[in-house]
Amino acid sequence: MQKSLIQEKISQAVSVLNEVNVDCWLTFVRETSMTADPVLPFLIPADLTWHSALIVARTGETIAIVGKYDRQMLVDSNAYGSVIDYVEGFRKPLLETLKRLDPKHIALNYSPDSEIADGLTHGMFLTLQSALREIGMDDRIISSEPIVSAIRQRKTENEISAIRRAIVQTEEIFSLVASFIRPGMTEQEIAQFMKDEAKRRGLPFAWDPQTCPAVFTGPDTANAHYHPTDRRVEHGHILNMDFGLKVDDYCSDLQRTFYVLRPGETVAPPEVLCGFETITRSIELARARVKPGAQGIEADSAARACIVEAGYAAFPHGLGHQVGRFAHDGTALLGPNWEKYGTKPFQKLEEGMVFTLEPRLTVPGYGVVTIENMIVVRSAGADYLSTPQTQLLYIHS
Amino acid sequence: MQKSLIQEKISQAVSVLNEVNVDCWLTFVRETSMTADPVLPFLIPADLTWHSALIVARTGETIAIVGKYDRQMLVDSNAYGSVIDYVEGFRKPLLETLKRLDPKHIALNYSPDSEIADGLTHGMFLTLQSALREIGMDDRIISSEPIVSAIRQRKTENEISAIRRAIVQTEEIFSLVASFIRPGMTEQEIAQFMKDEAKRRGLPFAWDPQTCPAVFTGPDTANAHYHPTDRRVEHGHILNMDFGLKVDDYCSDLQRTFYVLRPGETVAPPEVLCGFETITRSIELARARVKPGAQGIEADSAARACIVEAGYAAFPHGLGHQVGRFAHDGTALLGPNWEKYGTKPFQKLEEGMVFTLEPRLTVPGYGVVTIENMIVVRSAGADYLSTPQTQLLYIHS
Repeated sequence: MQKSLIQEKISQAVSVLNEVNVDCWLTFVRETSMTADPVLPFLIPADLTWHSALIVARTGETIAIVGKYDRQMLVDSNAYGSVIDYVEGFRKPLLETLKRLDPKHIALNYSPDSEIADGLTHGMFLTLQSALREIGMDDRIISSEPIVSAIRQRKTENEISAIRRAIVQTEEIFSLVASFIRPGMTEQEIAQFMKDEAKRRGLPFAWDPQTCPAVFTGPDTANAHYHPTDRRVEHGHILNMDFGLKVDDYCSDLQRTFYVLRPGETVAPPEVLCGFETITRSIELARARVKPGAQGIEADSAARACIVEAGYAAFPHGLGHQVGRFAHDGTALLGPNWEKYGTKPFQKLEEGMVFTLEPRLTVPGYGVVTIENMIVVRSAGADYLSTPQTQLLYIHS
Repeated sequence: MQKSLIQEKISQAVSVLNEVNVDCWLTFVRETSMTADPVLPFLIPADLTWHSALIVARTGETIAIVGKYDRQMLVDSNAYGSVIDYVEGFRKPLLETLKRLDPKHIALNYSPDSEIADGLTHGMFLTLQSALREIGMDDRIISSEPIVSAIRQRKTENEISAIRRAIVQTEEIFSLVASFIRPGMTEQEIAQFMKDEAKRRGLPFAWDPQTCPAVFTGPDTANAHYHPTDRRVEHGHILNMDFGLKVDDYCSDLQRTFYVLRPGETVAPPEVLCGFETITRSIELARARVKPGAQGIEADSAARACIVEAGYAAFPHGLGHQVGRFAHDGTALLGPNWEKYGTKPFQKLEEGMVFTLEPRLTVPGYGVVTIENMIVVRSAGADYLSTPQTQLLYIHS
């Protein structure tokens, strides 16, 4: 029988617990329709209402402690060896379970460094800490970040296949919009065409539809993360767009750069071509640094140095993030040593990780050149999952 | 000019800060598309990516500290007096701002007691605590629960109007499905009819569509929070359903009870009528206890006592929750003194709060009688927002 995603990820977690030498992983949540821990799609099939504890032990034992009305849904998932329900409060069943397991460590769902491993709210932490204090186990709490990161980052072939299907759909829409754009159109009109095409295919957007797609035309645009405006495409503009879709809950995240030919032009001016060439070169230099065991900062530095040495300002963001169930996913990052990135750029890269490569630079007077390709880390290095953009895309009048 | 929801709620928050005598409210978030603080729709128009601090001072001063690419969206919202952006890290701009404000307390977005006020993750708490320690302000942290609860619970007439429109749509679909149900249909078929009708109207569900609507027919159903099954409606069944929709981001949450007449029957048997009458009576007894200044436990106790005195088992949940942007919303609860409810049943009820009243009981051999009506707290007491179910709804063959 085909394993469900939950069954697949729980057995992956048991291996990781043995690998990192932790005997108990505890995910503590409540009202998950309101504040959802990002790990939950790997652990439960639907929302939980009251304080709930999802326990995976390195022995392979799995226990769910949930409010009475949430019991049957977890029993049906066939993912937990035992499902314990309560009416008035979680303390008694949870503390009895932990006393029986007597784990050396309790790996809990929080992490200062990684948002995907940081689903436990501070109020819930205080509640659990006070409960564990009753049985003298509050000093056994550690972060479950290494476990959560591993099951999220080491993507199964099923997960990679879903991402690839999302990429194919996105690239098809890029091809369609490339024939649609004409000088005089607004960013909003171009975005609407892409949105309509996604809706026609019944596909959800990979991030907030206010900025998916993001479309920027010309030299005077807002920065990234901004919605399309009524600014019009003009001859001599560089136009870029950032777009992603979800297929079977997994995302794509891709950017493309276009140039709007002026009357009489058959290629872009040298400074635009030079910017584009610098970006594609920086991507290939970075991709060569992505392999199991390397650190993400190495790839970021390679791309950053290439762009700065060519005389452009360094891009004010990390070179690439992981992609999965969210457009920004995973812990390890292809990024610089900046405060906001914490330890992410120093985490070891592993097989099965899926990253974007998205350097950018500004060509003064024309606009922003930015390509975002997607890669997967394999044993020998990084393979493209998307079709890399190697040629500037031209818009003819 | 019409105030936006964000502008309306921020000015409400300034009043509350003065009322509760707190000089600084700080909401600290990151990657909000992944782990969203439930308060955010009142504070920002779209998702934030990196560590972000949203500050409201009791003086009315408002400051947003965000990553560079998120700046323009906040400037456009016209809700913040100043928007400070950064590239590498939030510490410097945040600590400089706090040193200037020098607040006596920093009310932070966490709460052990209330999930709607508990959006800060534990990892983010640790990050902020360590930053505040640098400037000797880590001992000024308090919970912002009273502020967040107040702006969420004291609903404006705009918010109440949206809820009322969601209720009207839901009641219309209840009317339609009442004429649709026939003995022999499955729970799934009935749910699908309701879902199709919601889709036709372009309205999102108020909670996870797996259990919205929930449909339960007969004496042998699963408990609440379970998806519709292939169990068939039979003569002599009590059938109940739980359904809610969203209109302009505000929810309805309503339950109705039906009886499937047997051939020859024109009314339900006495034990079914008695169960139904007990539920409606318990609701009216409870509603009479809901008024500003009362505690939710009083209403819960009134309904609970009525049902137990009539010889039925007490319902294993609280009598009623608040409704707002989520189907389960707010902090104050009409509930019993159970561990999992913490201080919620003891919070003072206030004008503008919207609650459900949803007692239930089992009639052995027939099924579960459960009605869920919605009320709003006004100065003189609780008014119905929904049309209360006062008659058992009959299904004819």
